[in-house]
Amino acid sequence: MSAGEGQGKVGDLARLRELVRVFVNERDWDQFHTPKNLASALSVEAAELLEHFQWLQHGRLEELGEGKLAEVRHEMADVLVYLVRLADKLDVDLMAAVEEKMVLNRAKYPADKVRGDARKYHEYKDA
Amino acid sequence: MSAGEGQGKVGDLARLRELVRVFVNERDWDQFHTPKNLASALSVEAAELLEHFQWLQHGRLEELGEGKLAEVRHEMADVLVYLVRLADKLDVDLMAAVEEKMVLNRAKYPADKVRGDARKYHEYKDA
Amino acid sequence: MSAGEGQGKVGDLARLRELVRVFVNERDWDQFHTPKNLASALSVEAAELLEHFQWLQHGRLEELGEGKLAEVRHEMADVLVYLVRLADKLDVDLMAAVEEKMVLNRAKYPADKVRGDARKYHEYKDA
Amino acid sequence: MSAGEGQGKVGDLARLRELVRVFVNERDWDQFHTPKNLASALSVEAAELLEHFQWLQHGRLEELGEGKLAEVRHEMADVLVYLVRLADKLDVDLMAAVEEKMVLNRAKYPADKVRGDARKYHEYKDA
Repeated sequence: MSAGEGQGKVGDLARLRELVRVFVNERDWDQFHTPKNLASALSVEAAELLEHFQWLQHGRLEELGEGKLAEVRHEMADVLVYLVRLADKLDVDLMAAVEEKMVLNRAKYPADKVRGDARKYHEYKDA
Repeated sequence: MSAGEGQGKVGDLARLRELVRVFVNERDWDQFHTPKNLASALSVEAAELLEHFQWLQHGRLEELGEGKLAEVRHEMADVLVYLVRLADKLDVDLMAAVEEKMVLNRAKYPADKVRGDARKYHEYKDA
Repeated sequence: MSAGEGQGKVGDLARLRELVRVFVNERDWDQFHTPKNLASALSVEAAELLEHFQWLQHGRLEELGEGKLAEVRHEMADVLVYLVRLADKLDVDLMAAVEEKMVLNRAKYPADKVRGDARKYHEYKDA
Repeated sequence: MSAGEGQGKVGDLARLRELVRVFVNERDWDQFHTPKNLASALSVEAAELLEHFQWLQHGRLEELGEGKLAEVRHEMADVLVYLVRLADKLDVDLMAAVEEKMVLNRAKYPADKVRGDARKYHEYKDA
């Protein structure tokens, strides 16, 4: 991926990609991993993560409790695994994608126009 | 985070965390970022990603087309941004969480028992 | 709701609304039912429904099997319960909302322009 | 469906099913409506509904505003349309499914054990 890889400086996401590839290949599960199926699985895992928060009054960390936090960590891991796997199947460089998207976000929501404004924040999300 | 950080070898995810922190702070949006709200936003972005695949017959890359792939990349970026932000707010180390979860997955789905078996694959997902 | 109600012809949705109200009140759970929490719960249940289909190759009824169909029915029931509850809390008449939306849909997707066209169908969904 | 139908007392859900059938057939879209695709579409619409609430502090009706409420109504209509369509394709009687599920729920969460208890309410949801 980058020059650094050969020197033992493989990035986190490239490392995860390998970890997931090995796991999937050992089980011969690649056949189920169409991008559509992976996008569904990602969405399902994201909902399982949300489920832990859905009835909390404020939704802060303190309301979760230790046991729940461990489960939340695992759901977050599942989300990342499917995202990394989908990126692998679509040949998407996630770091580059985020950097591109952040440029678009900066243009769309200039700091001096949206600062601390809940209404604007909310509005743009629906735009 | 790790000893490597001080030597200019910050990992991808730590770098993203910083990128997002700066973006959020410039806009004073931290006040909206309760874990619950971030988990909702993550789930919404995952669904927006899924939307691009929902009517495809097979759900393969070729059915998407170039224009759609660009949009898909951006939705994937959004998912990663919210995941990294949620991890920041919950003080979760995503790499460690995936490594932990993979150990559990290996125990739960031994390769020699589930290899290439769609039914088992499907069943365990509902378990 | 309608003149018919007094004559024992209460509609399905009004009947469900009552059923759910009684269930919630018996448990004193109304306090957790903010529209936001109910929208989260609805989204989580919809994902649990999707989970049953995510690894199916074609996603047809025959691939599900009897046992799964029973679970799918229950997930569909959960989706409807939360939708009816949300409608109750927001004072939304679901039948009227669908009728309104269908008028908009007819204007947006004229039958003679979109007939049998997967691409158009797909495109407008992302519009 | 029921004896009453022939006498002009078709239920809400049977009426919606017809409305949607006509709409779909006029457009020759049945070919895209596998149960899997409909379950995805339902999940996507549920997320679009959630999106309107995701940054609200308390998530109450008053925080939405009139314009947003109109959009929320339409998202709710979309959710119901896909649910009714999925029920049609799977030959599921939604009213019967809810009644069945409510019996299970009553057994699972006895009113005198879970009354007003946020923790228990939260716990059972993850069970």
